[in-house]
Amino acid sequence: MILCDIGNTYVHFYDKRKIWKNKPEAIDKKELHADIYYISVNPTNEQKLIAAHKNSYNIAKIIDFDTPYMGLGIDRKAACLGIDDGVIVDAGSAITIDVMCQGKHQGGYILPGLAGYGHIFEQISTALKLPINFATPLDTLPLDTQSAMSFGVLKSIILCIQDTIKDQKAYFTGGDGKFLSKFFPKSVYNEMLVFNGMQISIDQALKYHKEQK
Amino acid sequence: MILCDIGNTYVHFYDKRKIWKNKPEAIDKKELHADIYYISVNPTNEQKLIAAHKNSYNIAKIIDFDTPYMGLGIDRKAACLGIDDGVIVDAGSAITIDVMCQGKHQGGYILPGLAGYGHIFEQISTALKLPINFATPLDTLPLDTQSAMSFGVLKSIILCIQDTIKDQKAYFTGGDGKFLSKFFPKSVYNEMLVFNGMQISIDQALKYHKEQK
Repeated sequence: MILCDIGNTYVHFYDKRKIWKNKPEAIDKKELHADIYYISVNPTNEQKLIAAHKNSYNIAKIIDFDTPYMGLGIDRKAACLGIDDGVIVDAGSAITIDVMCQGKHQGGYILPGLAGYGHIFEQISTALKLPINFATPLDTLPLDTQSAMSFGVLKSIILCIQDTIKDQKAYFTGGDGKFLSKFFPKSVYNEMLVFNGMQISIDQALKYHKEQK
Repeated sequence: MILCDIGNTYVHFYDKRKIWKNKPEAIDKKELHADIYYISVNPTNEQKLIAAHKNSYNIAKIIDFDTPYMGLGIDRKAACLGIDDGVIVDAGSAITIDVMCQGKHQGGYILPGLAGYGHIFEQISTALKLPINFATPLDTLPLDTQSAMSFGVLKSIILCIQDTIKDQKAYFTGGDGKFLSKFFPKSVYNEMLVFNGMQISIDQALKYHKEQK
């Protein structure tokens, strides 16, 4: 069994030995040696997985996550499923922040992903067509354009997430999760959060199925 | 004499009676009844002004603003010129934040403009192709996608600017300056900041010219 989380930029896989990701247009078929159980936030990329591997099954309907939030992405539901208390930060194409309290989802919000900020800047002005410098110091005011853009992006994201976390536990995941988690000394980085939630849902469904027999 | 500040999205004019702005491709020639003294951050839009009104003069070289910041935009220099102490927030296509202390520029940084955030979200996913709701409450966690995006944009910008301002005076300008200033009770909104700096520079240049005679 392979678990698969289809995002807007990457398709993420987990086969109990390793985690890997492919661009949707470059799914490595050699790795797909078993049935795939997947969730997806992107119908186009979902079609690309199915084209790459016929025995792929969408398990969205067994992700049982109760929330008053209307339209919560299936990947956010899965990531939250394994957390009873704390803040979940999934930093990918978008950065999603969700808060759990005593097993209940309190709500959450969305920021652009780190790459997205770079794209806006270059659309605003050619003078801002510079890469974000992820090592920009955040304790002194910038004195050049690249530092000024990088400071704005990083400082605004970090202060916003910090304001949500306060003294709660924080769990980071996603492609930029490891980088962002470094700004939060008490946080945990766990690239398995979404897959953990999928596995919990599968185990629950199998248990329910057994009990019905 | 008309003063003109050429930005990346709009061309702003001031003729001592009123302020107005035009899209660069729709400059209202009827209004241009006198010589234009301008600054510009966008060479393409600058050409459009010159095409619309021949007697237009770039006054960048008389904007005398001393700063250790390399490559500070001419509009940011002008906006800072009239402020001795405090934080200047110019919220347009980009949001620039600059800090002045005893007449000295301390540095500054850049965030995407409010419109820019909307553009990134729609590029990330069609599910995020929703307008930013500027009335989204920022004191409770969102429970739907549009509120989640809007909360992320507004909260991250506001917390970042607040972290810079602390107990300093804050001066807001630019197209979204009035809206943003409402989140900062002690702030001032002044759509004239850039034009004020241009006028100061012109007055200084005229004074110097007189003294040389």
